[in-house]
Amino acid sequence: MPDGILDDISHRRHNPLRGSWVLVSPHRTKRPWQGQQEESAKSVLPAYDPSCYLCPGNKRAQGDVNPKYDSTFVFVNDFAAVKEQQDEYHLPSDNGSLESRLLRAEGTTGKCYVITFSPEHNLTLADMPASSILPVINTWTKIYTSHLDPRSPLIKAPKSTNFPQSTTNGNIIDQPMQQFRYMQIFENKGSAMGCSNPHPHGQIWTTTSLPEEPAIELVHMAQYRRDHGGAHLLEDYAKLESEKAERTVFENNSFWAGCPWWATWPFEIMVVAKSHKRALVDLSQQEKEDLSEVMSEITRRYDNLFETSFPYSMGIHQAPLTGTDEEIECSHLHLHFYPPLLRSATVRKFLVGYEMMAEPQRDITPEQAAKRLRDCGGELYRKR
Amino acid sequence: MPDGILDDISHRRHNPLRGSWVLVSPHRTKRPWQGQQEESAKSVLPAYDPSCYLCPGNKRAQGDVNPKYDSTFVFVNDFAAVKEQQDEYHLPSDNGSLESRLLRAEGTTGKCYVITFSPEHNLTLADMPASSILPVINTWTKIYTSHLDPRSPLIKAPKSTNFPQSTTNGNIIDQPMQQFRYMQIFENKGSAMGCSNPHPHGQIWTTTSLPEEPAIELVHMAQYRRDHGGAHLLEDYAKLESEKAERTVFENNSFWAGCPWWATWPFEIMVVAKSHKRALVDLSQQEKEDLSEVMSEITRRYDNLFETSFPYSMGIHQAPLTGTDEEIECSHLHLHFYPPLLRSATVRKFLVGYEMMAEPQRDITPEQAAKRLRDCGGELYRKR
Ligand SMILES: O=P(O)(O)O[C@H]1O[C@H](CO)[C@@H](O)[C@H](O)[C@H]1O
Ligand SMILES: O=P(O)(O)O[C@H]1O[C@H](CO)[C@@H](O)[C@H](O)[C@H]1O
Repeated sequence: MPDGILDDISHRRHNPLRGSWVLVSPHRTKRPWQGQQEESAKSVLPAYDPSCYLCPGNKRAQGDVNPKYDSTFVFVNDFAAVKEQQDEYHLPSDNGSLESRLLRAEGTTGKCYVITFSPEHNLTLADMPASSILPVINTWTKIYTSHLDPRSPLIKAPKSTNFPQSTTNGNIIDQPMQQFRYMQIFENKGSAMGCSNPHPHGQIWTTTSLPEEPAIELVHMAQYRRDHGGAHLLEDYAKLESEKAERTVFENNSFWAGCPWWATWPFEIMVVAKSHKRALVDLSQQEKEDLSEVMSEITRRYDNLFETSFPYSMGIHQAPLTGTDEEIECSHLHLHFYPPLLRSATVRKFLVGYEMMAEPQRDITPEQAAKRLRDCGGELYRKR
Repeated sequence: MPDGILDDISHRRHNPLRGSWVLVSPHRTKRPWQGQQEESAKSVLPAYDPSCYLCPGNKRAQGDVNPKYDSTFVFVNDFAAVKEQQDEYHLPSDNGSLESRLLRAEGTTGKCYVITFSPEHNLTLADMPASSILPVINTWTKIYTSHLDPRSPLIKAPKSTNFPQSTTNGNIIDQPMQQFRYMQIFENKGSAMGCSNPHPHGQIWTTTSLPEEPAIELVHMAQYRRDHGGAHLLEDYAKLESEKAERTVFENNSFWAGCPWWATWPFEIMVVAKSHKRALVDLSQQEKEDLSEVMSEITRRYDNLFETSFPYSMGIHQAPLTGTDEEIECSHLHLHFYPPLLRSATVRKFLVGYEMMAEPQRDITPEQAAKRLRDCGGELYRKR
């Protein structure tokens, strides 16, 4: 196909990881924008905020006091979406009634953690050098490992049964009371993405159920592996994209990062392990350093693009904490970055209306987005 | 199950229309909110705005002048996401390469219309009596019918082949140049939902492809019909909900409207035809009047809930314009209302982070939401 033809015509692209489609309308950016403007993040924050419930030494909502931590700090979310203990919920037995057929539910327990990325209130990942992002990756790996099924093939050394209740720095990663199925690590950054505290932090929700998105991806990765003699979908994809280079934003020996062929959000990025890694726990020290470098390169480019603190939701997809051997073996470590901005620090893409009722739709092509992000390298636009 | 137990425990509910799940965390509304506040829609608008491209008699972006219409007016979107004509896009043939396997796309053509609901710039559906909403439903029906496959079982009388280019009021619903597969009728209301013009209007996007959401619903409705001796999923569902009444917001002889068991958005509403109707074209005059009544009741209650002009995206799902007999027969006319507000006119629910990476999550139960909306009937809170 002649290069660039997809810059002019409306088309749908296929997402093989979800088995879904996205509508691409490249010509549509010419449309004038008279709608809502986001607030541009301009306020100057202090390094320590006495009213912030995440700063070291401060008191939280339920009265606990944060330790004087010096890199990351993990605690159980004071307003968790799922809890470890609750009344049991018994499914109405399927008796052929409309009710048992159409009003189905299941109880879900789990545990929600908050993880701070730095003691400094006014930093973001974009401000942090790769060497300061590495401790975040190490903490994610530690909490993931401590929640793994003791029989998981991901565990190399026998797991200590008396995992310490508090690790260094007062982190509260205690042994869960039951085996959870999945751990979702994510970050909401910026008020446009529902984040209510600028202190650099992410969340970790762990549930007895396998949530929708990783479940859908697992189905497609497993099918690909069966259809293509044991090949891994995302290993093949990273190889192809690294060769083509059109959609690459940054890569190193261990990870490819770019705007995926099927991106929905204007500047969506996916970070994919180049060789088959099932989860964080499979990464070597060097690979963790490479992941820190990628995260630093991406978040800095995001901020440079519109010279603003770029909002996004980011999440890590990896092997379930417990599952079949096939589920664990077909899992492939990758990160999704979903940022809402489209044209500037104040004009976002709304995934509403047609997108909610019919199909995701994007305006610029992933190739155009990747080029702009590639060209945004170098120093962070704001000097500290 | 004891009533109210689901108000206390975290659980997942099953959406049989999509075959997907939503996480419900009823206790989570206790969480304080310090994040982004939406602008409350307080501005007083004039009945006619000389700078509005939708008001009667005004000039639009491409130079066309709107007629002096007196109820609805339809025209082709000046910044359409899909167009009727463009270069052909040939799929790279599947040659076993990674590229042909992982970078799949297809060209999509179509036609996008805008429909105004009233000549008055400062009205919304909530301000309009049911009798003024009826012409909107009539125009939707007309444009849907004019785009139907001439061989569709939905067509009762043979279709005129020379459909007039302009109908009364200067509406531009000309015969499409090719047969499209699906028509998505929707409305984005409010700047929080990406709407850039307060003049009451909706959109209609028609494409050669069957978009994701209606495609997923069709699969589940067809399967239900096969599994349950020809029964219709949504007919059964409306019957069950109307009997239980817990999640009902409003109903009349023809339609049930309520917060579905599996609602994702806090005050999400689904409007379902009580008997099997495949599309707008299947409605009798009385049924169209009943639909206008439901739309008026819902939009007024929405505004009353937080005493604000309630933002939402609304869309109509109905039979594809062309499709297999099974697809058309299993289709069941229904409307989705997806409103973002959660606690007040200025605090919305963000479907970000966990919701994007893992699974939709909601805080209040659909039963609690339905009760609040039921209790908001009566006059519109603002007097005109
Ligand atoms: O076409 P509009 O109203 O300018 O744009 C709005 O609706 C479209 C269809 O839902 C969305 O794609 C846009 O993101 C939104 O801003
Ligand atoms: O838990 P937070 O940061 O208060 O809340 C934020 O993240 C959650 C998880 O993505 C979302 O459910 C909320 O809507 C969002 O506002």
